[in-house]
Amino acid sequence: MFPLRKHALEVQSLPERLPHHNGAAELPPPVISIMGYGPNGFDEQVLSDPTGIHVYLKKWPVTWINVDGSHDHQIVQKIGAIFDLHPLVIEDIGNALQRPKVEQYDNYLFIIARMMMPDSPPDTEQLSIFLGKNYVLTFQENPGGDCLEVARERIRRNLGPIRSGGTSYLAYALLDAVIDVYFPVLDVYGDKIEELETQVLERPSENHITQIHQTKREILALRRSIWPMQGTLHTLLLDSPAFTEESRIYLRDAYDHLMRVIELIEIYRELGSDLMDVYLSTVSNRTNEVMRVLTVISTIFIPLTFIAGVYGMNFNHSKSPLNMPELDWYWGYPFVMLLMFGIAGSLLWYFVRRGWLGTPE
Amino acid sequence: MFPLRKHALEVQSLPERLPHHNGAAELPPPVISIMGYGPNGFDEQVLSDPTGIHVYLKKWPVTWINVDGSHDHQIVQKIGAIFDLHPLVIEDIGNALQRPKVEQYDNYLFIIARMMMPDSPPDTEQLSIFLGKNYVLTFQENPGGDCLEVARERIRRNLGPIRSGGTSYLAYALLDAVIDVYFPVLDVYGDKIEELETQVLERPSENHITQIHQTKREILALRRSIWPMQGTLHTLLLDSPAFTEESRIYLRDAYDHLMRVIELIEIYRELGSDLMDVYLSTVSNRTNEVMRVLTVISTIFIPLTFIAGVYGMNFNHSKSPLNMPELDWYWGYPFVMLLMFGIAGSLLWYFVRRGWLGTPE
Amino acid sequence: MFPLRKHALEVQSLPERLPHHNGAAELPPPVISIMGYGPNGFDEQVLSDPTGIHVYLKKWPVTWINVDGSHDHQIVQKIGAIFDLHPLVIEDIGNALQRPKVEQYDNYLFIIARMMMPDSPPDTEQLSIFLGKNYVLTFQENPGGDCLEVARERIRRNLGPIRSGGTSYLAYALLDAVIDVYFPVLDVYGDKIEELETQVLERPSENHITQIHQTKREILALRRSIWPMQGTLHTLLLDSPAFTEESRIYLRDAYDHLMRVIELIEIYRELGSDLMDVYLSTVSNRTNEVMRVLTVISTIFIPLTFIAGVYGMNFNHSKSPLNMPELDWYWGYPFVMLLMFGIAGSLLWYFVRRGWLGTPE
Amino acid sequence: MFPLRKHALEVQSLPERLPHHNGAAELPPPVISIMGYGPNGFDEQVLSDPTGIHVYLKKWPVTWINVDGSHDHQIVQKIGAIFDLHPLVIEDIGNALQRPKVEQYDNYLFIIARMMMPDSPPDTEQLSIFLGKNYVLTFQENPGGDCLEVARERIRRNLGPIRSGGTSYLAYALLDAVIDVYFPVLDVYGDKIEELETQVLERPSENHITQIHQTKREILALRRSIWPMQGTLHTLLLDSPAFTEESRIYLRDAYDHLMRVIELIEIYRELGSDLMDVYLSTVSNRTNEVMRVLTVISTIFIPLTFIAGVYGMNFNHSKSPLNMPELDWYWGYPFVMLLMFGIAGSLLWYFVRRGWLGTPE
Amino acid sequence: MFPLRKHALEVQSLPERLPHHNGAAELPPPVISIMGYGPNGFDEQVLSDPTGIHVYLKKWPVTWINVDGSHDHQIVQKIGAIFDLHPLVIEDIGNALQRPKVEQYDNYLFIIARMMMPDSPPDTEQLSIFLGKNYVLTFQENPGGDCLEVARERIRRNLGPIRSGGTSYLAYALLDAVIDVYFPVLDVYGDKIEELETQVLERPSENHITQIHQTKREILALRRSIWPMQGTLHTLLLDSPAFTEESRIYLRDAYDHLMRVIELIEIYRELGSDLMDVYLSTVSNRTNEVMRVLTVISTIFIPLTFIAGVYGMNFNHSKSPLNMPELDWYWGYPFVMLLMFGIAGSLLWYFVRRGWLGTPE
Repeated sequence: MFPLRKHALEVQSLPERLPHHNGAAELPPPVISIMGYGPNGFDEQVLSDPTGIHVYLKKWPVTWINVDGSHDHQIVQKIGAIFDLHPLVIEDIGNALQRPKVEQYDNYLFIIARMMMPDSPPDTEQLSIFLGKNYVLTFQENPGGDCLEVARERIRRNLGPIRSGGTSYLAYALLDAVIDVYFPVLDVYGDKIEELETQVLERPSENHITQIHQTKREILALRRSIWPMQGTLHTLLLDSPAFTEESRIYLRDAYDHLMRVIELIEIYRELGSDLMDVYLSTVSNRTNEVMRVLTVISTIFIPLTFIAGVYGMNFNHSKSPLNMPELDWYWGYPFVMLLMFGIAGSLLWYFVRRGWLGTPE
Repeated sequence: MFPLRKHALEVQSLPERLPHHNGAAELPPPVISIMGYGPNGFDEQVLSDPTGIHVYLKKWPVTWINVDGSHDHQIVQKIGAIFDLHPLVIEDIGNALQRPKVEQYDNYLFIIARMMMPDSPPDTEQLSIFLGKNYVLTFQENPGGDCLEVARERIRRNLGPIRSGGTSYLAYALLDAVIDVYFPVLDVYGDKIEELETQVLERPSENHITQIHQTKREILALRRSIWPMQGTLHTLLLDSPAFTEESRIYLRDAYDHLMRVIELIEIYRELGSDLMDVYLSTVSNRTNEVMRVLTVISTIFIPLTFIAGVYGMNFNHSKSPLNMPELDWYWGYPFVMLLMFGIAGSLLWYFVRRGWLGTPE
Repeated sequence: MFPLRKHALEVQSLPERLPHHNGAAELPPPVISIMGYGPNGFDEQVLSDPTGIHVYLKKWPVTWINVDGSHDHQIVQKIGAIFDLHPLVIEDIGNALQRPKVEQYDNYLFIIARMMMPDSPPDTEQLSIFLGKNYVLTFQENPGGDCLEVARERIRRNLGPIRSGGTSYLAYALLDAVIDVYFPVLDVYGDKIEELETQVLERPSENHITQIHQTKREILALRRSIWPMQGTLHTLLLDSPAFTEESRIYLRDAYDHLMRVIELIEIYRELGSDLMDVYLSTVSNRTNEVMRVLTVISTIFIPLTFIAGVYGMNFNHSKSPLNMPELDWYWGYPFVMLLMFGIAGSLLWYFVRRGWLGTPE
Repeated sequence: MFPLRKHALEVQSLPERLPHHNGAAELPPPVISIMGYGPNGFDEQVLSDPTGIHVYLKKWPVTWINVDGSHDHQIVQKIGAIFDLHPLVIEDIGNALQRPKVEQYDNYLFIIARMMMPDSPPDTEQLSIFLGKNYVLTFQENPGGDCLEVARERIRRNLGPIRSGGTSYLAYALLDAVIDVYFPVLDVYGDKIEELETQVLERPSENHITQIHQTKREILALRRSIWPMQGTLHTLLLDSPAFTEESRIYLRDAYDHLMRVIELIEIYRELGSDLMDVYLSTVSNRTNEVMRVLTVISTIFIPLTFIAGVYGMNFNHSKSPLNMPELDWYWGYPFVMLLMFGIAGSLLWYFVRRGWLGTPE
Repeated sequence: MFPLRKHALEVQSLPERLPHHNGAAELPPPVISIMGYGPNGFDEQVLSDPTGIHVYLKKWPVTWINVDGSHDHQIVQKIGAIFDLHPLVIEDIGNALQRPKVEQYDNYLFIIARMMMPDSPPDTEQLSIFLGKNYVLTFQENPGGDCLEVARERIRRNLGPIRSGGTSYLAYALLDAVIDVYFPVLDVYGDKIEELETQVLERPSENHITQIHQTKREILALRRSIWPMQGTLHTLLLDSPAFTEESRIYLRDAYDHLMRVIELIEIYRELGSDLMDVYLSTVSNRTNEVMRVLTVISTIFIPLTFIAGVYGMNFNHSKSPLNMPELDWYWGYPFVMLLMFGIAGSLLWYFVRRGWLGTPE
């Protein structure tokens, strides 16, 4: 019923140390797309085999190699050999449960980010970025649903300083694309919380508990994925020689966006907790209202029933003039009815005066 | 019903990266007001075209160019070209959802602050300040409702050291004006919380939940806008060569004011949370009171009704002297009535003695 | 009803930037008391005009000028001129809502502290201390109710190293006097919380909510006044050349006292929150107890009333031997009564056995 | 009933300072297993006496001595003498309640870690690691249930750089093995929380309180054992000359895993707290539902019973035409029945319309 | 009833600045015990007058002077004169409400620690330690109940390196003795919480609120006494030249113990808060259970009573065949009884099916 382990908290399964991806067999084969560019042009191609990469590396100032399908251990190994990647790093690519982090190796900078996937509930996918002298190498988990298309378009259309910005500007562009996709996902949560709020205040029902709890848990999982991104970008901003001074100005901009994302997550968390309180207050309020009105009705009728019961007693008034002579009076019944209505009216008046019947809605 | 997205949490809509403002068409055309001044005088004018700025820059020691209407991309671009602003900075001006921040560029200092707008619920507007060698350039989102008029008056009337204080004193004066407007807004929240508190303690009703929740959310949004201002001013105080020693003393004063604002926000947040507790306690107390009194009334009458019921049974006392001979007694009815009142009195006495009827209000 | 704005949270009113105090007209005229002293003696006088100060400054190693009535702008201006105070500092003296802080100016150290006033609820008053080379200048808001008398007595009676300790020892003595007055105020809150606690546990009533809430709010306001004192003293201890090595040892002692004050405030805050929980638990416990007992009583009588009702039905037993022949039996009535008492007894026994009637108190 | 002291919080028993383990008599005798290895081979043996260690230390580049049974004071003393361990360190080995920590001594680095044991509820065992120039010495509390087997296999099969990595790589491999075993334990808690959640939302019962509380407490104990591991690894990463540059890269990887463990623990703590809220909401919701429906039923019948009571009164209609003439009417009874059903229907309609009967599930 | 001020929060009474202890008259006279020792022997004596101290200071490498009774101002003054103590320090000795701290003076190090006293509820006593070149001087509040006896035994029996460890090892031994006594006190709280938990889960009663609240408050007070010890030891570890390298290794061990104490306190605090939640959940659960069952019983009988009431109405069936002809039927009564049991059975079946009667315990 609650896909706790599958979506939100996937890390809890024991990570295998051998760099094979789970259930690789069912996944499509990996796709290697390569893009070389410089101030004067660009070239774009899809390779089936990584051996063709060398040509690009020599020809263009910057080459971006993107591998869709980090689950294919052989391809990852082959490309790792080409770029001389550390064995641990190769493990990290294949094990798709890494936290965002940045690590400086001798001849490349290794960044792990997490991209939002257009799933429901939202899930994240690992993006491994290697920033070398004249190349940027990226690994994604699965082909398709790619938020990096924005960066590709920038290169194709030569938008902004991307073609002349070197590898660090491309790395910025990729991180920026990743961060920008967080916003519409948060939008969804904003809408969900707002809708829940309206519903809860109008007509709270039991399945709102489940929905609020679920939303809180998803935001918690989201926060856990995105939060370490902040440390990662902070590290890049502070002491990463791979980033040029100019790229760093842009990176600072991406960092500002990320901070807004994190602030929103914190606000949504707080609103989610508040919502549970609002739910409880509203339900308890409603119930109190109902119970109070119902109890007032009972309380008014119980003394009346008692009086009716009294006159239903079978005392023999032929034996004694004290035994309920009212029963034989001419005005007896109207008198008793008046008495009853008087009592009911007094009680009602008293309860209304003390505000126990609630305010009319 | 709850303008969550519009007022309080506007950032959650995906920021467009192209520096065009939403719905620019409906907004009034931007106004460029320019003010040159020095120790000996000042000159003030409204320009329709930014090309006239150069004259001022040469003529006066300090020139303050204020653009009302950061949504007009063309004007922003033109002025950006005049002052050689970085493309990212130009984006930031147009995208009115920035967090307060400060960034040092080669030939200017870029500050983003958020001004309170006299809307209800309170909203903030972005103020972009550029502090150059002999100019201060400001961009506001919309014309009108301008809290910077105070600074303008200071220049006109030559109040304090503003005319001889250089650009950094003007920047201080602008930030000080922005911070001072936070106080009346917080005043409104102080009043609202106080009023809600009085109402909740006197006669809690269901729409207080909505009001308290709404107030908490607005304070949360306010806090989110104002909080980063603290980091911004702190940065300016610590390592900003653009600020003279004298201006820094004044800026420290503005920083003190901001700290008071932030302390108040924190106190109001805590009081808001407390208020929810107070509401819940009061409601639950009331309901308990009511239910207890009502239940006591029922509990007293139920045994009486039982006794009345007993004497309403149709046992045939002609068949047996054991079958309710009281019904034929002379004192039967008074005796039963006395019994009933005795039971009612005993129960009442017991309940009062144990304090179950509550204390009289 | 709740003087939120007047006492506890006075800062929320918009501070006026012009250094005039509110309602100055109704306040008594300021009093300037001056005290010059050295190892060999002291001289004490009350001045009506600040011009006489010069004489003291020349004659005694240390001169303490105390102004009661910082609201009188003219006197503050005059004295400010004598000691060459910065315009912002003069504003701060007059605007009595400053947070505790310390600021180093060229020829004096400026300290703002907050003194407890013997009001109810406790309020704080601003004490501005200027520490110059051979003088200490203090401004208080109102004459009277002065906790600095302790320091004056120390000088008069030559207690401890005060007369030879220079200006920084006097500053310590003033701060120490201010901090020592916090303790009895906290004592009052300790007593109030203890008393509330006893009352709440014995007989919780609705106005305890108000009292607990009020106490929490006052402690919150107190905390807000006292908390920044810690930063202030910490700054003085760390890098304040105006304090001699010896005075600093004493200041460290005052700092220890302040830390105890702050710890107590934190404990009282936590106890206050706990108290609300204890209140709610106790009330809910009581109500549950009452409701349970009452409901048990009702539940026992309702089946009995049903039985009585059955035998009150008018079935015609002359028409059928099945129609309640018990009504004509000799032992009919006793049998039914026994049945009823049996049912009541069984229910009672069952309820007691399951502990539903509560434990006897 | 709740093994608070035994499993989760064992530290609370007063640690004895004399390095004897409790109840050593009942424990199996200690086992010393020794493993010498180098790039070219390895040798593995189980010793009954520590004197044979010297041979290995001379013969192999790296020797790993593992002692299962830190409770045997004599063995620990003997080995301590061989490796010249500090008396305090020998105490720490025997006292199995140490927090994870790292201490640099002159000729060895002393690390304490806590291994998960496959008990239920999960418990931790102390692992003491000494990292010398050419040896790694480890002490475990009890023989068996050993998570270090993974490291032994790596040496035997020459997997990865372990044989040529020196002592620091072996220390990494041990810590990595320890950390990897945390995941399945957390998995168990993930499952438990998920299962509890499903149960609570479907059919909350009183023993869920105990289970949730117990789970929270176990996670708290787990957190307390694992949390200081983070500081320990951080210290090793930052300033531990015993770790080679290459081993440090691997250690950073283990640190990343540990961070994931800690993040999961924090998430489980939060989910545990949430679960209590969900439990309370659901139970209170259910009860409200039930009470509301029951009270509605009572409220509908009470006025009807009153009317029946009225017509059960024995007013003598031969004495007065006002005394309930309906009783003699032809249509009297049907009229009264209609009246009753009318009232019942109206009330029911009113309650349904206001939603007081709840939504059908 | 709650000794809030006496035991737990004694600091809240205004500390007197004059170094006289409260109520000194009733306390026993102070005892000065002196112990000189060196690697070769030791000498131990009880003095009535401090003048004999000089002999020891010359004769032995380390002299430990312990004064039981810091309330006797004269003795403290005399000893203060002998060791040239600062006036503020002499005040601190007499004022027994100091927080743990460490202060470096010119020729001695001044440490304040708080010892657990074997009172109930647990209270702490101030231990002032002066660490000079060849002496350790300690002041305790009251004679008797001395946890330092452990250190004395170590000297007498020459256990460990104490006789050759110099003054700093003795200081460590004293602090270690103080810290070790915290454990059994925490043990008591562990037991209390465990016992409360079992009781609360089995049969919650109102005085559990008081007990839980009291326990939480005592742990809060304990925490406040012990927490600053951590800062104190940390300071000693980091930059205290008075401690030799070897003593520092031992001190680090004592620091580890203290950290375990603090961790336990935090866990007990959290368990205490949890316990209140568990109490509330259990009570509310119980009450719900009871109320539900009782209400179900009422709800079943109320419709039956109504039916009985209907047939108790006095409609005259001689006047109309419509007026309750059942009353004259042969099977009338059995039919009505069947109807009633049928209704009761249906309701019961419905309530059981929906689980409203609760699960059998």
